[in-house]
Amino acid sequence: MKGAGLEAGETSRARAVNRGISIMDFMFRVVAAIATLASAIAMGTTNETLPFFTQFIRFRAEYSDLPTFTFFVVGNAIVTGYLVLSLTLSIFHIIRSAAVGTRIFLAIFDTAALGLLTAAASATAAIVYLAHKGNSSANWFSICQQYNSFCERASGSLIGSFIAVVCFILLILFSAFAVSHHR
Amino acid sequence: MKGAGLEAGETSRARAVNRGISIMDFMFRVVAAIATLASAIAMGTTNETLPFFTQFIRFRAEYSDLPTFTFFVVGNAIVTGYLVLSLTLSIFHIIRSAAVGTRIFLAIFDTAALGLLTAAASATAAIVYLAHKGNSSANWFSICQQYNSFCERASGSLIGSFIAVVCFILLILFSAFAVSHHR
Repeated sequence: MKGAGLEAGETSRARAVNRGISIMDFMFRVVAAIATLASAIAMGTTNETLPFFTQFIRFRAEYSDLPTFTFFVVGNAIVTGYLVLSLTLSIFHIIRSAAVGTRIFLAIFDTAALGLLTAAASATAAIVYLAHKGNSSANWFSICQQYNSFCERASGSLIGSFIAVVCFILLILFSAFAVSHHR
Repeated sequence: MKGAGLEAGETSRARAVNRGISIMDFMFRVVAAIATLASAIAMGTTNETLPFFTQFIRFRAEYSDLPTFTFFVVGNAIVTGYLVLSLTLSIFHIIRSAAVGTRIFLAIFDTAALGLLTAAASATAAIVYLAHKGNSSANWFSICQQYNSFCERASGSLIGSFIAVVCFILLILFSAFAVSHHR
């Protein structure tokens, strides 16, 4: 009788901990969704037209001039969509904190989203670095001297993505903790 | 009595399945370690000296001319080291297939290694793409027309990294399956 009471107490404590984790999970998903959406919008609306032009050429830079930036926008948009959809499962976890199968399901998709977002953010960071510094060996000149505000905005839009990457790592840790806590 | 026998049978079957997963885990770790090592070596030994030169300049390309390639070599080397170290825990899982805590521990580090490797591989892919195609908007010319074998080798060294990325995704899936199977 005493043993059963102890076990019930432990189970209800484990549930309370898991509910706390689920609420944090939900909050981090909202933060990550806002961060990736902000990144996608900031990069997607980046363009700059220089104030001088010749008879034939208007100097204009858009994000779609660099294929990597397009990948960045698409990747961030996909991850935002996934995060919004995953909020439903996150709410389900708050209500039914004993769920294990759906947590693992979500952790696997989180890993995939983390991979996509890391790929997009780091590829863009490599190009932005090149745009800032150039590369003398390859004769690639820094374009940031001309397109200054374009570069600033492209660099700034990386911040949201890297915040979301940190959120995803925490989300996967939360899932691992909740599952291991519940065995 | 019958119930206890059934339960014991189920447990031993679950153990056998988990042992099978652990052996696959070990094999994929070896494959991933070889792949990342090959990538690091292939990129790290890449250089090309062109057969013509002027009085002042010898045209020579090395992997360290591009900072992203250095990041690629370092990232792959770190992941190789981690994979070799993780083999000990993988062997431990083959022997003690009921372990759950260490599996989750390993899954978390696998996620971190996946992040590092994805970042290195995709940043390098972005630069290699630029080296092949150039970018007319940014006035960055393709360097692969001159440094052909350098480019080929840099592109080829990406293959190993992406094989390892696929291995890591499978490893995380295996861990998730083994943990969920065991609750």
